[in-house]
Amino acid sequence: MVQGQFISINGERFYEIANYDAMQPFFISLASDTDLWMYLASTGGLTAGRRSPGEALFPYYTDDKITEGYAFTGPHTKINNWLPFSDKQQPVYDISRKIAKSLVGNQIVFCEENRTLGLRFSYLWAPAGKYGWVRRATLENLSNQPIDIDLTDSLLNILPAGVERKTQNEFSTLVDGYKKTELVPGASLALFRMEAILVDRAEPSESLTCNTVYALGLPNADYSQTESKGVRGAYIAHSHLHSFAQSLTWYNVLDVSKDAVAVHELMHFIARPDAIDCIEAAMKQSTETLKQIVAQNDGIQHTGDEANDARHFANVLFNTMRGGYYLTYPPKSATEDLPLTFGRRHGDPSRPWNLFSIRVQDEQGKPVVAYQGNWRDIFQNWEALSYSYPLYINHIIAKFLNATTADGYNPYRISNEGIDYEVIEPENPWSNIGYWGDHQIIYLLRLLELSYRHDPKTLHGLLNDRQYAFANVPYRLKSYAEIVADPKNSIRFDDEEHKRIQALVPKMGVDAKLLLDERQQVRRTTMADKLLITLLTKLSNFVPNAGIWMNTLRPEWNDANNALVGFGASMVTLCYMRRYVTFLQNLLNEDITIGVETAEFLKAIHKSLADKLSPFAFINAVGKAGENYRTRVYKGISGEQTKVALADVQNFLKAALNTIDASIRTNKRADGLYEAYNLIKFTDKDIEISHLYQMLEGQVAVLTSGVLSGAEAADLLDAMRASDLYREDQRSYMLYPNRRRKTFLELNNLPSEAKDLPVVKKYLGTILRQDCDGGIHFDAQYRNANNLPDELKDLYEQVFNHHAFTGRSGTFYKYEGLGCIYWHMVSKLLLAVGENISISTDKNATERLKKHYAAIREGIGSHKNPTEYGAFPFDPYSHTPSMAGVQQPGMTGQVKEDIISRWFELGVSVHDGQITFCPTMLTDADFRDGELRFTYCGTEVVYRRKSKGEGQKPLTLSKEQSEHIFARDGKIKQLIIEV
Amino acid sequence: MVQGQFISINGERFYEIANYDAMQPFFISLASDTDLWMYLASTGGLTAGRRSPGEALFPYYTDDKITEGYAFTGPHTKINNWLPFSDKQQPVYDISRKIAKSLVGNQIVFCEENRTLGLRFSYLWAPAGKYGWVRRATLENLSNQPIDIDLTDSLLNILPAGVERKTQNEFSTLVDGYKKTELVPGASLALFRMEAILVDRAEPSESLTCNTVYALGLPNADYSQTESKGVRGAYIAHSHLHSFAQSLTWYNVLDVSKDAVAVHELMHFIARPDAIDCIEAAMKQSTETLKQIVAQNDGIQHTGDEANDARHFANVLFNTMRGGYYLTYPPKSATEDLPLTFGRRHGDPSRPWNLFSIRVQDEQGKPVVAYQGNWRDIFQNWEALSYSYPLYINHIIAKFLNATTADGYNPYRISNEGIDYEVIEPENPWSNIGYWGDHQIIYLLRLLELSYRHDPKTLHGLLNDRQYAFANVPYRLKSYAEIVADPKNSIRFDDEEHKRIQALVPKMGVDAKLLLDERQQVRRTTMADKLLITLLTKLSNFVPNAGIWMNTLRPEWNDANNALVGFGASMVTLCYMRRYVTFLQNLLNEDITIGVETAEFLKAIHKSLADKLSPFAFINAVGKAGENYRTRVYKGISGEQTKVALADVQNFLKAALNTIDASIRTNKRADGLYEAYNLIKFTDKDIEISHLYQMLEGQVAVLTSGVLSGAEAADLLDAMRASDLYREDQRSYMLYPNRRRKTFLELNNLPSEAKDLPVVKKYLGTILRQDCDGGIHFDAQYRNANNLPDELKDLYEQVFNHHAFTGRSGTFYKYEGLGCIYWHMVSKLLLAVGENISISTDKNATERLKKHYAAIREGIGSHKNPTEYGAFPFDPYSHTPSMAGVQQPGMTGQVKEDIISRWFELGVSVHDGQITFCPTMLTDADFRDGELRFTYCGTEVVYRRKSKGEGQKPLTLSKEQSEHIFARDGKIKQLIIEV
Repeated sequence: MVQGQFISINGERFYEIANYDAMQPFFISLASDTDLWMYLASTGGLTAGRRSPGEALFPYYTDDKITEGYAFTGPHTKINNWLPFSDKQQPVYDISRKIAKSLVGNQIVFCEENRTLGLRFSYLWAPAGKYGWVRRATLENLSNQPIDIDLTDSLLNILPAGVERKTQNEFSTLVDGYKKTELVPGASLALFRMEAILVDRAEPSESLTCNTVYALGLPNADYSQTESKGVRGAYIAHSHLHSFAQSLTWYNVLDVSKDAVAVHELMHFIARPDAIDCIEAAMKQSTETLKQIVAQNDGIQHTGDEANDARHFANVLFNTMRGGYYLTYPPKSATEDLPLTFGRRHGDPSRPWNLFSIRVQDEQGKPVVAYQGNWRDIFQNWEALSYSYPLYINHIIAKFLNATTADGYNPYRISNEGIDYEVIEPENPWSNIGYWGDHQIIYLLRLLELSYRHDPKTLHGLLNDRQYAFANVPYRLKSYAEIVADPKNSIRFDDEEHKRIQALVPKMGVDAKLLLDERQQVRRTTMADKLLITLLTKLSNFVPNAGIWMNTLRPEWNDANNALVGFGASMVTLCYMRRYVTFLQNLLNEDITIGVETAEFLKAIHKSLADKLSPFAFINAVGKAGENYRTRVYKGISGEQTKVALADVQNFLKAALNTIDASIRTNKRADGLYEAYNLIKFTDKDIEISHLYQMLEGQVAVLTSGVLSGAEAADLLDAMRASDLYREDQRSYMLYPNRRRKTFLELNNLPSEAKDLPVVKKYLGTILRQDCDGGIHFDAQYRNANNLPDELKDLYEQVFNHHAFTGRSGTFYKYEGLGCIYWHMVSKLLLAVGENISISTDKNATERLKKHYAAIREGIGSHKNPTEYGAFPFDPYSHTPSMAGVQQPGMTGQVKEDIISRWFELGVSVHDGQITFCPTMLTDADFRDGELRFTYCGTEVVYRRKSKGEGQKPLTLSKEQSEHIFARDGKIKQLIIEV
Repeated sequence: MVQGQFISINGERFYEIANYDAMQPFFISLASDTDLWMYLASTGGLTAGRRSPGEALFPYYTDDKITEGYAFTGPHTKINNWLPFSDKQQPVYDISRKIAKSLVGNQIVFCEENRTLGLRFSYLWAPAGKYGWVRRATLENLSNQPIDIDLTDSLLNILPAGVERKTQNEFSTLVDGYKKTELVPGASLALFRMEAILVDRAEPSESLTCNTVYALGLPNADYSQTESKGVRGAYIAHSHLHSFAQSLTWYNVLDVSKDAVAVHELMHFIARPDAIDCIEAAMKQSTETLKQIVAQNDGIQHTGDEANDARHFANVLFNTMRGGYYLTYPPKSATEDLPLTFGRRHGDPSRPWNLFSIRVQDEQGKPVVAYQGNWRDIFQNWEALSYSYPLYINHIIAKFLNATTADGYNPYRISNEGIDYEVIEPENPWSNIGYWGDHQIIYLLRLLELSYRHDPKTLHGLLNDRQYAFANVPYRLKSYAEIVADPKNSIRFDDEEHKRIQALVPKMGVDAKLLLDERQQVRRTTMADKLLITLLTKLSNFVPNAGIWMNTLRPEWNDANNALVGFGASMVTLCYMRRYVTFLQNLLNEDITIGVETAEFLKAIHKSLADKLSPFAFINAVGKAGENYRTRVYKGISGEQTKVALADVQNFLKAALNTIDASIRTNKRADGLYEAYNLIKFTDKDIEISHLYQMLEGQVAVLTSGVLSGAEAADLLDAMRASDLYREDQRSYMLYPNRRRKTFLELNNLPSEAKDLPVVKKYLGTILRQDCDGGIHFDAQYRNANNLPDELKDLYEQVFNHHAFTGRSGTFYKYEGLGCIYWHMVSKLLLAVGENISISTDKNATERLKKHYAAIREGIGSHKNPTEYGAFPFDPYSHTPSMAGVQQPGMTGQVKEDIISRWFELGVSVHDGQITFCPTMLTDADFRDGELRFTYCGTEVVYRRKSKGEGQKPLTLSKEQSEHIFARDGKIKQLIIEV
């Protein structure tokens, strides 16, 4: 039976799964403190390397191919006739297997016991810094009988240096022809090489680096079978162990891209008597470094619930791998500079459209400042990071605002080298441009809220500070009328402006991608201006009762609903705007200075709100206002600023809030849930709104919006629990109900009453086809109505109902697809429920919300057993489809939500610059020997459990005390709090 | 022990290999009479489908991946606990395996016998026309004990319809998410579908076709496990066979891309009681059709040597798959029309850079006229075809000549839709332009010779017939001086002309790619003109003593020597020119009419030949003459023609022959071999020539040239046999001697005496790196001298010797690489030796040549045992590397050579329109019961062996008799010849 438990191996904590081979194979990401990366399947199949998929030791294929490739890739051992971890020969032996992953996340152990032979064989993978990846294998004789052993220990399918990922994927048979594996004479060192680098031209291209593998600790081994030409590389060691009685441990060390100098160094290293000690020390050091990195980001907690602790460590680890950690703290300047390291471009074999890139150290092994990420991702990770490093929040906000455009949007990627926008590549059919919209409100808002809680005064001070820039993205939104006419084609790419920007980059650097004034200086404005532009832009696309019109060519959070683009309207964004507006109402306490263009825009939108227009008149009015604003800023911002009275702004916000709230209320469904996205359709004189199916995202948005009372929130959660969003087997919520798709025979059938229509008769035999049972079908080439004659389009729509097509979400079974639980959204739900608990004043409602919180949290799974979860339960994964366990390990957005929820669970909150500790969510089980330890901004906090029934009293630190903690100045070493 | 033998299965002949699992896995191509294709490995891994890799039933990966993928792709059967053909559990059972392929080439059988259980399981793959691919499985109880059997019979990893090859290669994990496998209720029929077609845009894309699998003949089977979503498709049948005593046969039928109409049809078909009979009949019909196709191309022979017969059938089969067969005969018109069908664009999983495309039938199953191929390939296949259909030879010659350019070259591809030339694609780094040169002479010459032998009068008549066009390829060879200065950059792509041509195609069709006159009419010239242009162009690049300068950006036959381009000079082409010149001397018998530009060109070249210039002066003179000619024709041919006196032409040819012969003689090496390619280097006042290593191609060319006497030819063959070209283990010849490559540690090392050079000290630590043992190396980024400072370039050359770099041939171990036997060239050698035998008048030399012929023929391998050969020995393959058996099955150029050699062996020859039968190469072993049967132009020929010692007398048919045979008019039904 599959069983999971926490165990210790050489002083490190691991989670061990016994009989994991009875589970469906699962996919695992190993972390490292350096640029070493490894992805492996529980089958033993793997890929690993340094830096990028282009520097791999084993082929970098998609997860399915890695999982099934174990039979010819990676470690293979033969001990006499026993083949551990193979699916060959099981009937011959009585065996059992275990797999264990270290809670630090960088080591994994495979173990097989052969009771027939009385032997146990295990191996561990671990990173060892500059040495590369280490495989440590151990053979033990469990009986008291010595046994003669013939050992063949191999690593199969080792790639040579210098093979590009795409080449290996498509041309592996050609690549094999260039391979050569050499053994350095007299050593165990094997060099995996290409005889030449594959190039497109008829010129020599010497291959001057190699991947290396050597073994340490294997007595009397013969490596001669390793040498080969023109075939897959393999490292093969033969050894005979005479009268083997106890236990033997040996090592394989693997690294990539070594040049001649490095190989000579290696030859000397291998000959050192203390080589094994060095390797072991490096493995240990790697673990320690990783722990330190996670520790400083408050990732280490010691509670009574090791599963929680392990999951929290993993959450912080992956959040740090994406968002990075600070090399200097507190900040040295007040600019947007972020001295972050360890972050990386993400991607893994289960996300083949993303290719990771890890650059965390320079050639001397020193951390480098570098980060890059999709906008939507990286600001989330930085939000979670900011709880532990609050003094950088306003830097992050500045980074966010400086990268939003004058027309109110933001590019898709940022890095330490500025912004990136997408470009139309004529030869790449998958290239696209456009603006994602949702995160602009909610992620910015969360940062602002965080800043406000920590230091309202400073944030107030920034409001009218003219220090914020505009990103210059050469997208030009068309006129309102054009967008109404063709909302799927709403943006013109300004190729000239693009070329101008690109030409400027070498001269000006990062600033070239910002809006400049006549003197080529970066144009600056106030925070108030930037905050209003974002809001006004969204309002200028607000279709009352429908939501924010998605007319910028990109979907919102759920990419898989991308067909909503054009005719979709987002209630999700509207809900986030509601919270944004209430925050601004609270934040603004004086007149503001903004651009004259913005002031005009504000006036126009405000007027439309005040005019009590019909939805159709309203969207026409605000849409036109948006166009007017864009027309001005596309011509060039004047730079002129003007003051707007506080009262005017507040009136505007109030009017906005009323209209938004009314729309949210209207979107409550009969089943108690709320609409997430609606469809809109312009007619000459009106706008038609139609609804879609339930979506988890919409409920999360409403719960986040602040529009619901505690009781209403609890009612909504009850309704969700009773709805088809709930997946009983995983005790959690899908993105939408699992719908049954039509079968092939059901799918493409004209209704029988259509048979006699003249139009059907007209096209029978060409576009329409009749089967031998009399059924009539559209010819298979008509995949949508695009190329059909107009007179057939209605019939086609009747058969296929493409109006309600939301995107690929409805046509596949993985990722955000049918039947899938997408864990990031579940964790957003958890966070929203936590927020509702925090603000609930209705005790009964609070209790109901707490129950939901606990249930959602259990669904997420750190306490699930491995079979239910589908992998190591302490590891975060992206989603759980209907037909398998968790998928896509590691760097999911979920980790950020869970880190923030964890602060809620621990009762740590900040208001007006003061920290309060008031844990109302903890139970006895969270304490170990009456204590619970965690760090907060690096300060150790110890909760001591008072005897039962005494009730909790909040502890609030003074501003000064809190500032010491925020500053991480070491003045406060430890807090011991009785709770 | 591995053992091969010919056997019969249900009346069909097969070659069976017992214990094939002891061999290295090998790769096999199955043929079909339709667009059904299959490639499979002896492991059982496979890919199959219709038309192209984009319509596959199992993933189309490269051969290495198909071979190793057997564990999760294709047929998998479980019979109680026995897993036939798996590498699991062998130790449990006493098993043995066999594999057999039908000599027709369209069926394969895997058989495993389990002596422990007393059971035998086998399955056969066979095409069945419109039904698709059939797997017929048979289980037999060999004991007399009935046994209860639980049977699980599966086909794993079945692709849905609508997946592109590249998507499957790179994004299989994503593709899996879209997969759905449906079972048609109440039937065994499974539909393999995508829930939607993957597209780049956010629009619906219905997936309206599916791949289909059904089973017939399996009693009480349960197929429910087949249904799945979001995972790999699999067809899974469970059945319980109670008291199974005898034998059971069942069928899986697989097909691609069925629409709703086809699925309904299928449902009815499956329900028919005679469904199995229909399938069996279709399988049989498929075999018969294939036999008929091969038979009409003279592929069926019955001799005493079944291995020869089988190989000849396979040769004709693959030659036909490439070159096609004629739908009408004799020709209906005298134009270049070629009513060919069955040919296809070639490619297979071991040649991932070529993707095949099979379009042989229309939707009604009727053959379509279509052909396409690389120039170098298709004219070869048509040459072999022309022996059997001689009345199309002049059509093929016209096709050839009409597609050569005015500047004397030819485009890279032809099809029934005209010519294709390569275009520079800026986004594709592998895109290239240029002209291949070698085949222009030899393949044209062979066609001319064939035409001349069959009908010299007609060919004479065509010489001054102004019917031949010029291909218009928008490449512009630069001036002589420019080419001398940078011969690797000798062609300008005339983008405007290209666009003009492309714009014209929709209006004019095929003719748009021909040179037009002012009135947009195709410009025509005489055959004599075209023949001379080709020769003169080559002569204008003739460097005496070196060969034909390769300055048109493309290598000759051996693509892997592509680094020769620019500084290489081809003796191979020069040898072929020698034969071309002697043929012209013989052919021309009257004054000729040619273009005035050609006449000018002829005069200039003739003058240079006559002037007895130094090599340097000669190449300058002819190079300039070539430039002058090109300048004129690039401006537009005048269309003016002029008569040249026969004597002038003959004088010119004589002068050319003298110079060529002198150069060939000069290139004889000390070891008795001849240089194949030389390197040239222009200095200010001279041209330096340096030599390379031995190459098989050069010897073949000399043997083909006609320059050697019989004894000289035999001497050369003796020298080759003693040289390093010979590979003892395969009893054949490599393209070049297998050279040892430097190891990584040897490779990149500065000579120790260089250490103290100032330039070394200057760059130490930057471009040069010192290792801990004191060795100095170029930094690994310097893969060639391109980016090095000039002062380091000599040193770099000293270390890496890039001057002698010939191309990738020297850096890899497959294809044309190190240690490889490339069978096409071996068969060219065989053909050349045969020709030398034919013309030898020296009896002693003839005997020596015959011995070599026999030895080379044995090396090719139809008589090799499977282990030595590495696959079914009757199947042609492209090459044999040093580390494995034969590679790349099927459509290799070799087949064409072997077909022609076979006519030589059978003693069939044509002179002056008369057929002669004079078999001097046959031995008793070639006769079965004293007879040997074959067809020639469809006429059956029976050789009856006279009793020994009577000697052979040639039998020559009359012109009239011969014409009946050439015309295939059925007048002569059979020839019985005593030999």
